[in-house]
Amino acid sequence: MIKVELNPSDQYIEKAIEGYDVLEGREGAGNDFLGWLDLPEQTPSSLVGECEAIAQEWKDKGVQVVVVIGIGGSYLGAKAAIEALSHSFDSDINPQKTRVVFAGFNLSEEYHAELLEYLQGKSVACIVISKSGTTTEPAVAFRLIKKHIESIYSKEEAASRIVAITDKSRGALKTLADGEGYRTFVIPDNVGGRFSVLTPVGLLPIAVAGYDVRKMLLGASDMAKLCRERSAKNPAILYAAARNEQYAAGKKVEILVNYNPKLQYIGEWWKQLYGESEGKEGKGIFPAAVNFTTDLHSMGQYIQEGERMLFETVLSVKNTNKELLVESDEQNLDGLNFLAGKSLEHCNKMAELGTRLAHIDGGVPNMRIEIDRIDEYNIGELFFLFEKACGISAYILGVNPFDQPGVEAYKKNMFALLNKPGYEEASQKIRERLQ
Amino acid sequence: MIKVELNPSDQYIEKAIEGYDVLEGREGAGNDFLGWLDLPEQTPSSLVGECEAIAQEWKDKGVQVVVVIGIGGSYLGAKAAIEALSHSFDSDINPQKTRVVFAGFNLSEEYHAELLEYLQGKSVACIVISKSGTTTEPAVAFRLIKKHIESIYSKEEAASRIVAITDKSRGALKTLADGEGYRTFVIPDNVGGRFSVLTPVGLLPIAVAGYDVRKMLLGASDMAKLCRERSAKNPAILYAAARNEQYAAGKKVEILVNYNPKLQYIGEWWKQLYGESEGKEGKGIFPAAVNFTTDLHSMGQYIQEGERMLFETVLSVKNTNKELLVESDEQNLDGLNFLAGKSLEHCNKMAELGTRLAHIDGGVPNMRIEIDRIDEYNIGELFFLFEKACGISAYILGVNPFDQPGVEAYKKNMFALLNKPGYEEASQKIRERLQ
Repeated sequence: MIKVELNPSDQYIEKAIEGYDVLEGREGAGNDFLGWLDLPEQTPSSLVGECEAIAQEWKDKGVQVVVVIGIGGSYLGAKAAIEALSHSFDSDINPQKTRVVFAGFNLSEEYHAELLEYLQGKSVACIVISKSGTTTEPAVAFRLIKKHIESIYSKEEAASRIVAITDKSRGALKTLADGEGYRTFVIPDNVGGRFSVLTPVGLLPIAVAGYDVRKMLLGASDMAKLCRERSAKNPAILYAAARNEQYAAGKKVEILVNYNPKLQYIGEWWKQLYGESEGKEGKGIFPAAVNFTTDLHSMGQYIQEGERMLFETVLSVKNTNKELLVESDEQNLDGLNFLAGKSLEHCNKMAELGTRLAHIDGGVPNMRIEIDRIDEYNIGELFFLFEKACGISAYILGVNPFDQPGVEAYKKNMFALLNKPGYEEASQKIRERLQ
Repeated sequence: MIKVELNPSDQYIEKAIEGYDVLEGREGAGNDFLGWLDLPEQTPSSLVGECEAIAQEWKDKGVQVVVVIGIGGSYLGAKAAIEALSHSFDSDINPQKTRVVFAGFNLSEEYHAELLEYLQGKSVACIVISKSGTTTEPAVAFRLIKKHIESIYSKEEAASRIVAITDKSRGALKTLADGEGYRTFVIPDNVGGRFSVLTPVGLLPIAVAGYDVRKMLLGASDMAKLCRERSAKNPAILYAAARNEQYAAGKKVEILVNYNPKLQYIGEWWKQLYGESEGKEGKGIFPAAVNFTTDLHSMGQYIQEGERMLFETVLSVKNTNKELLVESDEQNLDGLNFLAGKSLEHCNKMAELGTRLAHIDGGVPNMRIEIDRIDEYNIGELFFLFEKACGISAYILGVNPFDQPGVEAYKKNMFALLNKPGYEEASQKIRERLQ
């Protein structure tokens, strides 16, 4: 169960309800990308079963490493969930588990060369995620991984070790998958990348990593019900209202704060969700993320006393999954015996509370979202809450939450510089510019 | 060799030279914390030798894991260097290497419980870093790790496996180390945490992780010479001038950009260095960091089209340490054969150049700092360049670069909430406030 501590004014609650109406009415900008609204409740059990079956099949076959190829929304959701749910030293503690590693989310030569070194001698499979199959980063990585897999297995066996998640009928990856006999999953037309974690884009990698995606969908589904409420009882309305009120008051940077390092990539996922949905037309809250208490000894000084353009949203975890108490010490030279027998989490919670008060005193408004614990159910709740609030929030701001026109700009230049066929004129222009 | 592409105006070069004069004159605010200026050239070879000897001794002894306990500046420098220099899949590729893991940089109960699980059955040593020995996070973690080590080794052997880096004569950790017979290294009085990576705080963990700290000091030393120039030939003057000019023009957020995931923690180290040095008195550039190209599919949209309050500093790496070419593919369904035979790094560099142009066109000024490759020498250069520029930059801004008064605010509240002896009055007040 998620608890939200946010106190937007009635005025902003009303604005958020207007945004909610646009979203629920399905007639706002980008309304052909609203499929994610229905995923928690309408994802067929059979689809989840297919993900689970592949996870089981690869496990039974002794697959040691599954390379998940994707970038942006085809990467961050699965990465966030797996990092949150895994042991901090997972590969050492659970050496028998199928390991999920990522590729194609950058163009680093060293990273991909070292990935290939790492795969040597291992039983490998691959999930390649791309709507078109032509996005440069994943396409380049898939060429490498495909060749590697085909170099160690028969054609048939190789095909059984590659799953494509792509368009239902069109595109390079779909054509390739059909030709080679890969199993495929569909990225629905009406679900954009950053809203796709509850499609097979997220579900398959998370299932392969050994986590219970049914529980995740259940959490999302329960949250979807809560987020259907047309009032201030709806946590998505509350969050959307509160953050827009801060923005209107000149707070242009929102910092998502966690006190548990496992949530670091939830912050990265959230940054994409909000940054890409809202950062357009010269508007939008700049999303940043910190990991406390470590970053209290880094960004803490700035937050406390720097430019007063910040507000924070604290993502708190009520219960821990492990227990550990502060040790007593005979000498007590560090003077910490007053904490002996207390749980580390108690100290962590007092750090959280003390920091909130200090930051509020320093002119940094604080909001708080609390999840019960880090598990599949709660992560599912969180995913959906942030997605729903994002749609509402962008409508309050007055932008289309579901496009990303600015992402094309660097690609066009890159293709021109790389002399991609079809970009001849752009190539010539950019070379002239560079001289 | 570092190359900088920055074009500040003469006016800001002059301002930066004024800042340089304050720094070099050693008479500005915080001038009792300038010891870091001399570290590259004055660190005795014997001190480096002591670090190397401990690394060798533990290696010979078969130590598998060294737990480095520290927070903020006692953590980020070593973490940044080790992440930059390590193989992307280091623990798998180099299982025989002494592994460095960190602790005491947060109060997460799960993290520390799982760290203790991970240490079970392993040969363990510990480096504990704290000026006072009473900072909550590292002190709590050290109690746990000390008990663990003492539970598996004799008193004498345990003492040989713990090294304390602390004050030269005072404090809880120094007293404990002397009593227990730990070897100690000194955190100089005149070097603050975020400027301490070239003291044993950074040198010992980096040496233990298997990297050549002499080369790192050499890089820093060569950079120190370059940064002594009192002109626009000095890259620290250039960087300090350029970023302050952006800030004065309303660009309140600086994004440090890398195109190599190994530099992620260099970004985190840089955020502490600049955020903590400049974020005070309601002023300072908000430091953020992104990893491209992955974050082009996340923060890229915002950077291209969101609030126009951003500028970027691109940290580019000229040469890669590994080679990998884009594969040719018979079917060419993804249309990428125009890249076949090109290196991934070529694509990465064109992405970088294309992105710079796109962002400049979008109203995001771009600066560029290029290092030759990722190795100890270049990381050493980079550390010193950023430190020197930071001192100059904060003096241009008109703040003391070397204090961090805002970091105390959360600690006071936390101690009050935890009923620390001596905080009785504050405890009562904060409880009244919370009611």
